[in-house]
Amino acid sequence: MKKQLYNIAPKARWIRQGHKSGVLWLTGLSGAGKSALAVGLERFLFDKGMRVFALDGDNLRHGLTGDLGFSHKDRHENIRRLAEVAAAFVDSGFIVVTAFISPFRVDRDNARRKLGGQFHEIFVKADLNVCEERDPKGLYARARAGEIKNFTGISSPYEEPYCPELILNTGEEEFESSLARLLDYALIAFADGS
Amino acid sequence: MKKQLYNIAPKARWIRQGHKSGVLWLTGLSGAGKSALAVGLERFLFDKGMRVFALDGDNLRHGLTGDLGFSHKDRHENIRRLAEVAAAFVDSGFIVVTAFISPFRVDRDNARRKLGGQFHEIFVKADLNVCEERDPKGLYARARAGEIKNFTGISSPYEEPYCPELILNTGEEEFESSLARLLDYALIAFADGS
Repeated sequence: MKKQLYNIAPKARWIRQGHKSGVLWLTGLSGAGKSALAVGLERFLFDKGMRVFALDGDNLRHGLTGDLGFSHKDRHENIRRLAEVAAAFVDSGFIVVTAFISPFRVDRDNARRKLGGQFHEIFVKADLNVCEERDPKGLYARARAGEIKNFTGISSPYEEPYCPELILNTGEEEFESSLARLLDYALIAFADGS
Repeated sequence: MKKQLYNIAPKARWIRQGHKSGVLWLTGLSGAGKSALAVGLERFLFDKGMRVFALDGDNLRHGLTGDLGFSHKDRHENIRRLAEVAAAFVDSGFIVVTAFISPFRVDRDNARRKLGGQFHEIFVKADLNVCEERDPKGLYARARAGEIKNFTGISSPYEEPYCPELILNTGEEEFESSLARLLDYALIAFADGS
């Protein structure tokens, strides 16, 4: 028998707020546009009166996972912890938007297993050459110069999702189009709560 | 310059919901009544329409900190991660009620440093003999029998807070009185949001 984890059932929170909770798990290369999409979505849903919170890999790297590096082992542990935090937010009623590269299938699949139907995998898809050309943080240049090791796409693999709930081709379509499709997806996925 | 961490300022969330966010950090021996107080407070504030979430050490031990044991080093790391999660919830607008033994001053002080004025240390105070007599989970008996090592109060120290925001003498007063004082404290601490 599963232990009763919560004093207040997540569904009671949904009814209160008028919408469901869940995770929009954005995955893709650095520079693919994950953070910009997460931020745009958070603002839109917040302005509609919904409960939404964006979790950004860059921010949490300084705290919760600040003890971890970028080896494969540490990357697995990084995503494991972030998925646990996302799950806690989901249990509290939030729509969580995560913007983590999360390069390994096994880690994303573990998050999916933990969250069940509340996990929505969104593949933010742009070719490596597009991302490298954008290089908003100058990281690709440093990775090519050998200054950053284990950099996804350059010296560490990115495993594309087999069956994501949504693909946003940010390398081919306008950012606004990708964002609009993400917004539509979110409104339908979390509609109602009763 | 501190990086802008959030797209939506916590204060915008406070104004939306009509109250501030912060952490009520309950600390005390096993059996002192932390979880019961946290659950009672969560229910009361939720029913008042407030955004509140109880984080329980027992639950999170299975997930986020499931890789940790009960050595001093692991206990420090345990509280460090839990404080990071609490901080993320505070940034999302929640009143967080934590029910962790959190036996070491240095760990609680680190949480306070991280959260600043949003950290409220609540000492749930009951003598060891009272807690041991209650022994709701049978843990003290097992610790005395040597089956559990590093058990707070028996084989691992508990460091009382020097200057907590509130002391609830659950060993001396009725549970309902302690809970009522905690509720009053919370309503004042998080009142308004503008």
